[in-house]
Amino acid sequence: MQRKIWNPPFSLSVLGFTLLGITLCVLVMSASVNAQLPDDAMEIVRERQLTPDDIKAALATYTPTGRHDEYVMFTSGGHSGQVIVIGMPSMRILKVIAVFTPDPWQGYGYGVKDAPLDASNPGVTVDGQTLTWADTHHPALSETEGDYDGQYLFINDKANGRVATIDLRDFETKQIIKNPVALNDHGATMVTPNTEYVIEGLQYAMPLGNEYAPISEYKSKYRGLMTFWKFDRERGRIDEDQSFAIELPPYWQDLADAGKLSSDGWIFCGSFNSEMATGGVEDGNPPFEAGTAERDMDYLHLINWRRAEQAFKDGKVEKIKDFPVITLETAVAEGILYLTPEPKSPHGVDVSPSGNYIVVSGKLDPHVTVYHINKIEKAIVDKDYEGLDDYGVPILSFDAVLEKQIEVGLGPLHTQFDNQGYAYTSLFLDSAVARWTLGPDAKYKAPERPWRLIQQLPVHYNIGHLVTAEGDTVEPDGKYLVALNKWAVDRFLNVGPLLPQNLQLVDISDTGDNMGLLYDLPLGIGEPHYAQIIKADKLSAWEIYPEVGWDSINQQKHPKAAEKGSIKRDGNTVEISMTAIRSHYEPEIVEVNKGDKIILHLTSLERTYDATHGFALPAYNITASVEAGETVTLDFVADKAGVFSFYCTEFCSALHLEMAGYFLVKP
Amino acid sequence: MQRKIWNPPFSLSVLGFTLLGITLCVLVMSASVNAQLPDDAMEIVRERQLTPDDIKAALATYTPTGRHDEYVMFTSGGHSGQVIVIGMPSMRILKVIAVFTPDPWQGYGYGVKDAPLDASNPGVTVDGQTLTWADTHHPALSETEGDYDGQYLFINDKANGRVATIDLRDFETKQIIKNPVALNDHGATMVTPNTEYVIEGLQYAMPLGNEYAPISEYKSKYRGLMTFWKFDRERGRIDEDQSFAIELPPYWQDLADAGKLSSDGWIFCGSFNSEMATGGVEDGNPPFEAGTAERDMDYLHLINWRRAEQAFKDGKVEKIKDFPVITLETAVAEGILYLTPEPKSPHGVDVSPSGNYIVVSGKLDPHVTVYHINKIEKAIVDKDYEGLDDYGVPILSFDAVLEKQIEVGLGPLHTQFDNQGYAYTSLFLDSAVARWTLGPDAKYKAPERPWRLIQQLPVHYNIGHLVTAEGDTVEPDGKYLVALNKWAVDRFLNVGPLLPQNLQLVDISDTGDNMGLLYDLPLGIGEPHYAQIIKADKLSAWEIYPEVGWDSINQQKHPKAAEKGSIKRDGNTVEISMTAIRSHYEPEIVEVNKGDKIILHLTSLERTYDATHGFALPAYNITASVEAGETVTLDFVADKAGVFSFYCTEFCSALHLEMAGYFLVKP
Repeated sequence: MQRKIWNPPFSLSVLGFTLLGITLCVLVMSASVNAQLPDDAMEIVRERQLTPDDIKAALATYTPTGRHDEYVMFTSGGHSGQVIVIGMPSMRILKVIAVFTPDPWQGYGYGVKDAPLDASNPGVTVDGQTLTWADTHHPALSETEGDYDGQYLFINDKANGRVATIDLRDFETKQIIKNPVALNDHGATMVTPNTEYVIEGLQYAMPLGNEYAPISEYKSKYRGLMTFWKFDRERGRIDEDQSFAIELPPYWQDLADAGKLSSDGWIFCGSFNSEMATGGVEDGNPPFEAGTAERDMDYLHLINWRRAEQAFKDGKVEKIKDFPVITLETAVAEGILYLTPEPKSPHGVDVSPSGNYIVVSGKLDPHVTVYHINKIEKAIVDKDYEGLDDYGVPILSFDAVLEKQIEVGLGPLHTQFDNQGYAYTSLFLDSAVARWTLGPDAKYKAPERPWRLIQQLPVHYNIGHLVTAEGDTVEPDGKYLVALNKWAVDRFLNVGPLLPQNLQLVDISDTGDNMGLLYDLPLGIGEPHYAQIIKADKLSAWEIYPEVGWDSINQQKHPKAAEKGSIKRDGNTVEISMTAIRSHYEPEIVEVNKGDKIILHLTSLERTYDATHGFALPAYNITASVEAGETVTLDFVADKAGVFSFYCTEFCSALHLEMAGYFLVKP
Repeated sequence: MQRKIWNPPFSLSVLGFTLLGITLCVLVMSASVNAQLPDDAMEIVRERQLTPDDIKAALATYTPTGRHDEYVMFTSGGHSGQVIVIGMPSMRILKVIAVFTPDPWQGYGYGVKDAPLDASNPGVTVDGQTLTWADTHHPALSETEGDYDGQYLFINDKANGRVATIDLRDFETKQIIKNPVALNDHGATMVTPNTEYVIEGLQYAMPLGNEYAPISEYKSKYRGLMTFWKFDRERGRIDEDQSFAIELPPYWQDLADAGKLSSDGWIFCGSFNSEMATGGVEDGNPPFEAGTAERDMDYLHLINWRRAEQAFKDGKVEKIKDFPVITLETAVAEGILYLTPEPKSPHGVDVSPSGNYIVVSGKLDPHVTVYHINKIEKAIVDKDYEGLDDYGVPILSFDAVLEKQIEVGLGPLHTQFDNQGYAYTSLFLDSAVARWTLGPDAKYKAPERPWRLIQQLPVHYNIGHLVTAEGDTVEPDGKYLVALNKWAVDRFLNVGPLLPQNLQLVDISDTGDNMGLLYDLPLGIGEPHYAQIIKADKLSAWEIYPEVGWDSINQQKHPKAAEKGSIKRDGNTVEISMTAIRSHYEPEIVEVNKGDKIILHLTSLERTYDATHGFALPAYNITASVEAGETVTLDFVADKAGVFSFYCTEFCSALHLEMAGYFLVKP
């Protein structure tokens, strides 16, 4: 068990420590309360065998009661289908936002009418199948001029090709939409610099629209896809009617990033099966893992989204499943799509803060490959092509667009940036974070090393993505980096064969080779793939809903909000207005007949911060959460006779257990 | 924003600090590495404005990378329906165990055949309604001789009257059972000292078996219930056929606890509606919160479970919905059930480690009320009754059984114990933890104060339960206490109107009035009600499954485990054996016809710790997680035509994205 976490080790001499001791002595004896260490603190240090680096990390991350974190990290929950909200530097999980998976704690997916997860939503029930999970991968905060604006968050469902919109006024999911043409995705979600579009790239090529085609017709019938979901900021919703897609070759497109500043207008997207392998290990073929890795180079896709938008507006599209798709032929003809070689089966493609550099991490290559936007644009103008691919797409000359290749280590996956001109690349096989200098953008003190590896910091273990504070913006903050490690192995107590992930907080505030680990966060609730970190003061969520009777699904007054309880019968429909306030419901006794259709509007009359009530109805699989001022509607058929004690699931007061009632259904 | 967390404040004089400084100076300059503080540590203290108490807390809870926690806390997840596993003192969430609610990350509830959450389980689909959530309240670790043995964990579903069993070899739920007689519960789960029985007490009185009866017939037709679920340790399952229940008066029974040592054989259970109020605020009646609080005294229920067991074995039961129930009449006749007064609408009833004291926390009374088991048993022998209740149950004389009443503060809810003879009671209204001395069991230095309040520590805010390390056993550890606070209000960054709970770690290792707050853990994934804390070294979970082809549902070799892929067709049934190993499936290409019945056995060939694979199938709402060595069976009908890319949802290797295949369904 490795206990020393600072790397490289702290290397003060004995003399150094003596001087340090005297300094500390003076500090401690000074009048400043901050320098006063309790006498038992040193005892704890000895008892717990803390090293100097442990002490530093403990002090750097500890967040006293009531003190708020400086940053908020939004990470995907992987196949949990959710989004996880983490405060930094404390690395405490502040909330899991239910997105694609029902969450009874949030009353999400358990009977509230017209909620995004309602089975009536065509983003949820597809071809008669209700989808109750997702594989969320890449969250994207909404941006204004390339900077996070703290208003919305988008997240994809890799498993089913879907995208969700979360409103950061109440941290609730407001929209789930299904891609009508694609069944999965991966290069999603990323946003253009003013959130004009939310990008969703298909991962595993398929017949677009999902018509059946045998695998033997892969090259002719299977395709990739990039979808541009138009975001309507005023409505806070993706506008499906203003959205379109671009057909791509069947190369298994991977991650994508939007250009910014100098590269604004471009989308960059890597791929890892330009071999167009079709697997079949059961028939003696190379498995996909080998077949997709045969060539030394794959293709970086360059997509001019403004030209694509124009083609869409000009009607230069074909409809697939009623959705407008710019064909490959049109994309080539209109100068929308170009390729350029990239080594080798890359994962991440990331645009530097200035917009100048596009960094590709080829996971089977020890280098990152850096392209310059000016060189790309020049090669396009000059038609400096290596040729065309099988689908007629121009391939820009690699030499013409290449800026630099930097050897960073084994298994580079993904790159992020800071405010000092460093780039950080995750190294899956080395289990490390590589810090390297971003050419002329580097502000470090050694200008003679413009494109150099500076430090490899070991992490534990098998890092996937990494993320820096505001790292996807035009102005990253630096300061912190989080390594999203895929394996934890021995890092935590054994909790059975399914282990948590390990998110490690890294201090990147120092220059040079002084990155250091601060904290290990086990995450046993999902598998975060990617994250974004925003300065906390950019967020301004509501403490309570704006007024009593608020419909949070539509962010407006609920038409059935009522401040008084009532029960109205019309034929066999019973419409109930119920209020909740500490600590009773009104009405408390509801009697109906078996078979009645029940419409229940539940309004919280609370105006107090944190005064949440729940509503649980046994045997009916119904549960709701009403935050202060909220109104929700539940509708169901009273198809089970008997006596059902509904009650408040939130411990709202000392008399919370008494907040209950009886729902009686006469046989 | 309050930043000072130690309470009472650290009160060293200037001279004290000077002496401390000199001491520290000597310590720092000594050769011991543990005393060496990095020079930048003090800078962090100043920058982050940490007080001496913050520093102490930071050092006491910080757990360096790879260092394991000393304790594990299992908390209920409230209406999340799950159980949360937290390492202590780091207060990191190690895992959420999916119990009653589907969890796609764990592949739980998304297609794996015969899993506890399968709709075919009568504990899940009740009267045609599939229940996909629960309100978990009180986890109970299995015990041997009154001490946690680290083998199993039980948890209730308050919303629907259910109990689940979790196997701590793999931290997975193995069993969900539905109470056939009761629709809700609350005094659940608690175990007898050798886990002979798992106790489940009904909360909201109802017609047993849930036949309809109008609320006007409450006193005659509605009843309480205590169910005794027999645990078969060898099978690791509750044996429903050996289980029984006892009919109780309709008093809204609340929490329960099993006697131990001197009180072994007894179950104690409070109640809070001995008024038998039936609400109806809509008709001008007092709401339940008032109606249930009218009387000064409610009833503590005393249940002799060995006598009850004997009555059950002797056939002295009636069958309700085919389940054996000891009637109130029999319970009285057989000396199984007694009552005694308790003030006033109590929540917790808790048995002290010695078994001698039964502590009742009357939430509308500023006192805790302590009963002595010897006095209870004597009063029973002496028939020292105040009378009989409306149902003929003897009411033991309050004065005869009372040991002491101690004024602890406002809103006492629940009491726990340590190894120093202190008791700790949560005070909801005071938002505080009261430490008081447990009479002659107190080992503190002031024997002249045998039943006294020692300290009230403010917590933030509205504490419900509290829990101490091994606090429910015959030998609590002391050291740590966790306050399960219901409201967080301003403690964390605002994440919208639905706030996290706040679990605060309290240092109780010192004697006297020196309890201090160490850490705030926000919990934005559910609402923990109760928890138990076990020494980590009592747990010994598997790192990988015992052999390749393991069926974790039944903890034995899976009959369909296979180390080689195959596809066999029999009519329109297609049986597929699929293997998974880094990083491919075999077979990779599966082609079937629309309408075929698919039986897919997926086996992980991995033998490496943490080498988990997933299996996701788009559009079919199917996802599985196979840990090293595991075999799962999925069965479904291929009712949607098209091309579906199945893939591994766990980032298992650098080539994890290549771990995929195509499932083709011909129209």
